[in-house]
Parts: sequence; C-alpha cells; structure tokens
Amino acid sequence: MEKQYVVGVDVGGQTTKIGIVDRRGNIITQTVINSKYGPEEAPLFMQSLCDTIRDLANPTGLDTINGIGIGAPNGNYYKGTIEDAANLEWGKGKIIPLADTVSDCLGGIPVTVTNDANAAAVGEMTYGAARGMRNFIMITLGTGVGSGIVINGEIVYGHDGFAGELGHTCSVRDNGRPCGCGKKGCLETYASAIGVARTAREWLELSDEASLLRQKSEITSKDVYEAALLGDKLAIRIFEYTGRKLGEAFADFVAFSAPEAIVLFGGLARAGDFILKPVKEAMEANLLSIWKGKVRIIPSALKESDAAILGASALAW
Amino acid sequence: MEKQYVVGVDVGGQTTKIGIVDRRGNIITQTVINSKYGPEEAPLFMQSLCDTIRDLANPTGLDTINGIGIGAPNGNYYKGTIEDAANLEWGKGKIIPLADTVSDCLGGIPVTVTNDANAAAVGEMTYGAARGMRNFIMITLGTGVGSGIVINGEIVYGHDGFAGELGHTCSVRDNGRPCGCGKKGCLETYASAIGVARTAREWLELSDEASLLRQKSEITSKDVYEAALLGDKLAIRIFEYTGRKLGEAFADFVAFSAPEAIVLFGGLARAGDFILKPVKEAMEANLLSIWKGKVRIIPSALKESDAAILGASALAW
Repeated sequence: MEKQYVVGVDVGGQTTKIGIVDRRGNIITQTVINSKYGPEEAPLFMQSLCDTIRDLANPTGLDTINGIGIGAPNGNYYKGTIEDAANLEWGKGKIIPLADTVSDCLGGIPVTVTNDANAAAVGEMTYGAARGMRNFIMITLGTGVGSGIVINGEIVYGHDGFAGELGHTCSVRDNGRPCGCGKKGCLETYASAIGVARTAREWLELSDEASLLRQKSEITSKDVYEAALLGDKLAIRIFEYTGRKLGEAFADFVAFSAPEAIVLFGGLARAGDFILKPVKEAMEANLLSIWKGKVRIIPSALKESDAAILGASALAW
Repeated sequence: MEKQYVVGVDVGGQTTKIGIVDRRGNIITQTVINSKYGPEEAPLFMQSLCDTIRDLANPTGLDTINGIGIGAPNGNYYKGTIEDAANLEWGKGKIIPLADTVSDCLGGIPVTVTNDANAAAVGEMTYGAARGMRNFIMITLGTGVGSGIVINGEIVYGHDGFAGELGHTCSVRDNGRPCGCGKKGCLETYASAIGVARTAREWLELSDEASLLRQKSEITSKDVYEAALLGDKLAIRIFEYTGRKLGEAFADFVAFSAPEAIVLFGGLARAGDFILKPVKEAMEANLLSIWKGKVRIIPSALKESDAAILGASALAW
C-alpha cells in the first residue's frame, strides 16, 4: 500500500487538532478532540488521540499513513516525549512518552514529536513561505513567542532536543517584566500578544494621553490593532515599541545563524506594517554591516487555521 | 601516495602561521611569514603563502597533503574568500579569492577557508576539549570576542557563510560602548581583553577606590589579572563584571542552540575562576529551568601557541 498520507496533530491546552494531509499539503480530513484531562489522565488523552486517528484514517486505512507528526508544548524530538509542560494539566512535572505510546497503539506507525514552533517551521519549509530555504528562523507570535530555527535545511534541536527558545532570550536586562518562565525581561513578555496588551496597560497608566484604548476594560492585542487602524497614536506607538523589541532581538538572532529570512507567524504578524515596519527598521539598525539589507522578514504563507496541523504533519514525511 | 598530512594556516594582521599536521594533531613542522602587505598587494601575500607551503611540504611532498585549511578574518567558507577584512591592509573593502588562488598555485589541492573562531571550533572538536561533542559553542576571548557554533557536529555557516558573530550580539542596549563594527553595546566591547582594560579605565575614573591598577599608565587585561591575583578588589570586581556580561550572553546562546558545552579559548579564559565563576553564575541565573546545571563551561584543551594552526588544519580532513 502506498503511504500517501501523514497525520498532523497539534496538542494544545484546551483542544487537540488532528488532520490527515496529502503530499501537497492538502488537509483531507480533520477533527478536534478535548485535551483537558486531569493530572493523572495522560493515558486517557493518548487513548482518545489514538482512537481518533484510527477513525480518521478509516476510509483509506492505517496502511496508507506514512507517519504521524505531533506538535506539543515542550515536545522533545529526540525522546518523543512531552516534558514538564506547564500548560497541560496532565503534563506538569511529568515526562509523557507520547510517541512510543501512540506508535504502539497504532501498530508501530512512526511518530515524531516536537514543539509547536518547530512544527510550524517544518510546515513553512514544506508547504509555506520558506519552501526552498535552507536557513531561516520561524518566529511564532501568539500568547507567547515561539521559535523554530532551520540550519542547512534541518530544525535545530540541540544537545537535548529543546533548542530554539528565542522567546526567552533577554530583551530588557534591568527591571524587565517578569515572565511565566521565572526569568525577567524575556522577549516574550514584550513581543507576544500578551506583551502588547501589557504595554498598553502600562502606558495608559503612565500618562493621560487620549486614546481609544481607554474605553476598554480588558485590553487585548486585537484592541490595540483596531485602535491603530483608526489612527490612535498611542496604539500605533505600542506597535512601534513592540516591533522595535522584536527587531533588536532579530539582529542578534541573525548574528547567530545568518538566516536568509525570518518568517513571522501568528496573530501579531497580521498587524501588518504597524509591526513589520518597526521590526525591519530596528533589525536593520542593529545588524552588522555584512547583513544590512540582506535578511528578509516575511509573513507565514500558511492559513492560520491549517498551519498547526500542516506543520506537525510535515514532520512525518 | 597516502595523504597523511594537512596544512593549517592562521592568517593574522601582522603575521601568518603555517604548519603541517598529522592525523593525531601533531604539528610536524611550522613557520611564520609576514602578512603585512599594502592595499593592492594581496597577490604578493598569497604568492608568499604558496611558496612557504610548498617549501614546508618539501620533505614528504605535496602529494602527501590531504588539504589546506585556512583561518582568516572574515573568511567565507562557502566562497573560499576573505571579504572586507578591516584588520588586513590588503583585505579592506576587497574580496580576496584566497582558496582558489592557493589551490591553483599548488596543483589543485583542496583549500578550505573560514574565520578564526570557526577554525578554533573545528580544532577543539577534532583534537581538543570538544572531542565527541556534536553540539557546542566555541567562544574566543582575545582582543575581540569570536565564536564558532557547532550543531549536529557541523560548524554553522548560515545562508551566506558568515554565521556565528556572537561577539556582536547586544550586551548593553542603552548607552552601550561604541564597537569597532559601528554598533553600540556589542558583547565584544565588554568581554574581550580590550573590554576588560576599558572597564578598568572607566572604573578608575569613576571612583577614588585604591587599586594597584592606578600605578599603571596603559592598563591591559593582563595587568588586571595580575592585580586580581594579588587580591586587588577593584580588579576582582572587573572580572566579575566581565564574567557576568559573558554569562548573561551565554544564557541567550543556550536558548538558541541548546549546546552541551561552551568552550572558552584565549587570553581571558586563562584568568581562571576570576572570570569562570561569575560566567557560570550569571549563565545559570539566566537559563531557562530546563537547562540549569546542564551546560558546561570548559576551557580549551589546545595549547594556545598551537591552537590556530591545529584549528585551521582540522578543516582539511
């Protein structure tokens, strides 16, 4: 039987998306299962995942599946595990043998696990904006800042499988914002959706400047974007600041791996030039001269709703 | 004829070292030539280099040479060139086709070029402290701060061949020291030998604190080390500060490529615990919890006088 499909799985804190994908990156069929389970219920989640994959694959049969790729928080590529995933009730402080369990349950199909941002990078390289690129950095701007680094056409996993935590490099050394990771001043506390909302709240408190954002009770990065679209000066400056933090960081990333491009994915990336322009300006201002004008900043080419499944699935080719 | 030797060449601003090396990393014979040539005299330098290599290889013959590895400022691995090397009179603003020229001149022997720090990393991996390691970062602490990054057993060259400029990542974002590269606040302006001397001068001006360093007219990092050895508190604090700057940067490097170790080479690395202790403390304090206690900081295992030749030669195996 020709193995013409792969399965992509995107494990999130609330739900897990599962899809069957063909060689061209078409999602043939997909579904969503619950992934809120109790601290001791990882086996229940994995059983549900296996059952769902088997059902989804039923029309063509498991024999047609080349492999299963799973993007998951703290996913370890080398071990196929989820390790101490803070935002999975059943993953906190535990090592979950996800790849082995799923593979055993499904007759030995190869299963590959990595974190969400690495999966996104593979997706972008296989089906998206980074096709043909051998050196690029994927930055996912969601509630946090994730990263997947590609060097010589391969994801960088490092010595232990956890490389590419660029959201936790230092953006502000002194008096930086506390980060969920326990450190202070991480890029993620400034350049994520949550970081944008935080900047808005801080700045609104620090001045009396008029802003549409003052009408909101709980400000989200979407509110800031909508205000910026309406010409709100404070909102526009918030994106400028956020973009500058990102661009400054990008210049350092370039000094590390000299990528051809940095690909941006996620909600914030959709704020367009409000954020892209300051990102590019700050990156250029901080690049060594050998790289000035040479590193592209490009948006993801994958539909946001499909990207997680596509990215994970691409691991399985 | 068995190709049992390689040639290692270390191109510096004043002199160029050349050695013939066997498979075990023994330097069989070596010499030094002048590399101070005028702006238009790159061909003269390359001719001298070729003549010297031919002479050195004479006892066993060029047929026994497997290849030539050259470490040079701004050496480009992909193109075999030296590109716009500011500290070579004959390399400023020019692209010097070093590999092709030397290879043509010596009957087609393969010639590999890279920068000094990458050559050091290959040397360390082949003959030194990083033997058997597949993921590590080499940091050379000389007049500047150089770096060679190894991922999956291979040097990271990036899209353009210039990856690994970690000395020019940002250490101090606001009001940072001007760097020779044109940027401000680069790690190199704090953590190099020149950076140490600069810190000493700045601190001596800022206070009246007693210090042995006040007796010196032109302070070098060696003076600071000798004062620290004698218990000079200011000198000790200078190393603590330098080490902290390095350690903070290392934590971000780890977040990038999750190396097994960071190998330190060069004069400053010999300041021992004066610098290593604060490096380790600052790195640990800034690492994500998954890496705490897991990334080693180790000194180079190559003799400083041999390292440049060995490193470059290792490129040729």
